[in-house]
Amino acid sequence: MFPEWITKPCPDISAVHRDAAAARQAQLTKPTGALGRLEALAIELASVQHTDRPRAERAPIIVFAGDHGIAAQGVSAYPQEVTIAMMANFAAGGAAISVLAKELGSSLEVVDAGTLAAQPMPGIVTDKPRRASRDFSKEAALDVADLAFALECGERAVARAAVSDPDLVILGEMGIGNTTSAAAIAAALLGLSAEAISGLGTGLDAAGRDRKARLVDAALAQHGLAGASAGQTLCAVGGLEIAAICGAIIASAQRRIPILIDGFIVSVAALAASRANPSCRPYLIFSHRSAEQGHRLVLEALEARPLLDLDLRLGEGSGAALALPILRLACALHNRMATFAEAAVPDRPG
Amino acid sequence: MFPEWITKPCPDISAVHRDAAAARQAQLTKPTGALGRLEALAIELASVQHTDRPRAERAPIIVFAGDHGIAAQGVSAYPQEVTIAMMANFAAGGAAISVLAKELGSSLEVVDAGTLAAQPMPGIVTDKPRRASRDFSKEAALDVADLAFALECGERAVARAAVSDPDLVILGEMGIGNTTSAAAIAAALLGLSAEAISGLGTGLDAAGRDRKARLVDAALAQHGLAGASAGQTLCAVGGLEIAAICGAIIASAQRRIPILIDGFIVSVAALAASRANPSCRPYLIFSHRSAEQGHRLVLEALEARPLLDLDLRLGEGSGAALALPILRLACALHNRMATFAEAAVPDRPG
Repeated sequence: MFPEWITKPCPDISAVHRDAAAARQAQLTKPTGALGRLEALAIELASVQHTDRPRAERAPIIVFAGDHGIAAQGVSAYPQEVTIAMMANFAAGGAAISVLAKELGSSLEVVDAGTLAAQPMPGIVTDKPRRASRDFSKEAALDVADLAFALECGERAVARAAVSDPDLVILGEMGIGNTTSAAAIAAALLGLSAEAISGLGTGLDAAGRDRKARLVDAALAQHGLAGASAGQTLCAVGGLEIAAICGAIIASAQRRIPILIDGFIVSVAALAASRANPSCRPYLIFSHRSAEQGHRLVLEALEARPLLDLDLRLGEGSGAALALPILRLACALHNRMATFAEAAVPDRPG
Repeated sequence: MFPEWITKPCPDISAVHRDAAAARQAQLTKPTGALGRLEALAIELASVQHTDRPRAERAPIIVFAGDHGIAAQGVSAYPQEVTIAMMANFAAGGAAISVLAKELGSSLEVVDAGTLAAQPMPGIVTDKPRRASRDFSKEAALDVADLAFALECGERAVARAAVSDPDLVILGEMGIGNTTSAAAIAAALLGLSAEAISGLGTGLDAAGRDRKARLVDAALAQHGLAGASAGQTLCAVGGLEIAAICGAIIASAQRRIPILIDGFIVSVAALAASRANPSCRPYLIFSHRSAEQGHRLVLEALEARPLLDLDLRLGEGSGAALALPILRLACALHNRMATFAEAAVPDRPG
């Protein structure tokens, strides 16, 4: 179901750099462990980046947009044309991720991975096999060729970003209806009911959520997704931007570039990616726990403990962008604090 | 017990600016509430700063250092001379807070509010009534004149910082033994046993923690602190840098400058400050939940929900500094995102 490149192993992390980073943390002028998760983060980055001086400065942001046939079933509180309107807003600088990218000094590329837009839009990279996924309550969302195209769309975006030698990448998404697709993928891959996974999305009420859960459960049964592979699942109930993010995650890890994972949708893409190619897992850094109900379950399945918990549920890569300063400061502390010896500070009871 | 200026009311927050900020958040191109706690943060800053455009750019950091007579009882894993050595490290740029201040573009002032240093140190503001607090297992830590001096030391530091028209201030601390003093203050003010409050401090084992709890409980009984005021408590078991931070918090709030509160020690100073002058409470923004055991109880008493939870237990103001980018990004999003009307994005089912 997956093209061959998807399963190509990602490079090993460096145990040498991990151990050196841990040794350095123990010598810095603070009680060992007093910087908590920032210490683990610096060590993790050093081992993934194969360096003594981990960095999180160059962090390009790529947002993949797609439309969803399932939106015809009324699963979102917002009309489908919001996807295209928001792409224009990304490009014009008015969206949350646009503001965050500028503040953080990150480039922002927006990829139309499968929206309904009939024409290329100014400031947007168009790279799609079709306009929107099919309505998965009626038929498979994507065929095998759609899936391969979307995965490679993600790979192409990472290849463009890799030219600037990034320290990590941030991936985001936009797509009316995509929480429903993501909930279906998560339910299938985790073997859970849609009710356990399905959240409010952006602004649904309880009745809307129930309706969404029933739709997803019916689709899971109809497509026979019990025990299905990540590839089968993405074809049956996936979305083009979600598949593109899955491809981007694997392509990035294969190039040894860590990925700062955003909220529910991107985490579901990460779940699919780590099922398709488990060797990508060490490259994933989880930024935040979203207010979306199923996110906690997906994070647990990935044994991920995100950095932030701020009740975010926007997507666009916004939660990952908000966590970037934590990574940058963790690196600055690791690289620039004095050691006990340098500062002549007693490091134990004297 | 407190000098008169401490109880002078802090200015009211602006309900007009709060409501305007909330209305603006509802017009920005995102589902209402999708930016979670960042929305509340921007609204809170707008109301405290009396502005339509909240800011967190200018954020000077002031670290108060003090030594503690109780350290003679072996309550810390580190020798007492670490306080002075770390002050030198702050000034030399090698400590965590020094690195963070530089990364964040914040000024860093280090105030010797009562260390054992016999001479003024290069790069440190000396402003102390005595060298170290007294051993509170034997006598009152501070007399009324010491307390008044330390509170005014905090006020003087804020007055210096206020010259640069800060958007907020970050307060930090350093002092071997100060988790024991803070635990005693918290236990007294919250009416809890020392065992409930007393944490590991920086590197104590379980036996050390038990010993610390017994010491604190004995001191609370000896000084008759059941139902005592904040002033009585600070005199009996306080520390000079903790009292200075208490004064700095109140002085800052009186000038309408919000304070980004660090971990356990600064939160205990905030508890004392809000007991002494409850009108300062709206000016407190809580940055992180530390790994220190009693911090959770102090935060609950203050009805505070901190922004970060990263297992930090360093002090120095480091947790507050780490949260500053979240405030800055919350302000950027509030001030610079497009509205639905500006971006021509449909804001409801159409």
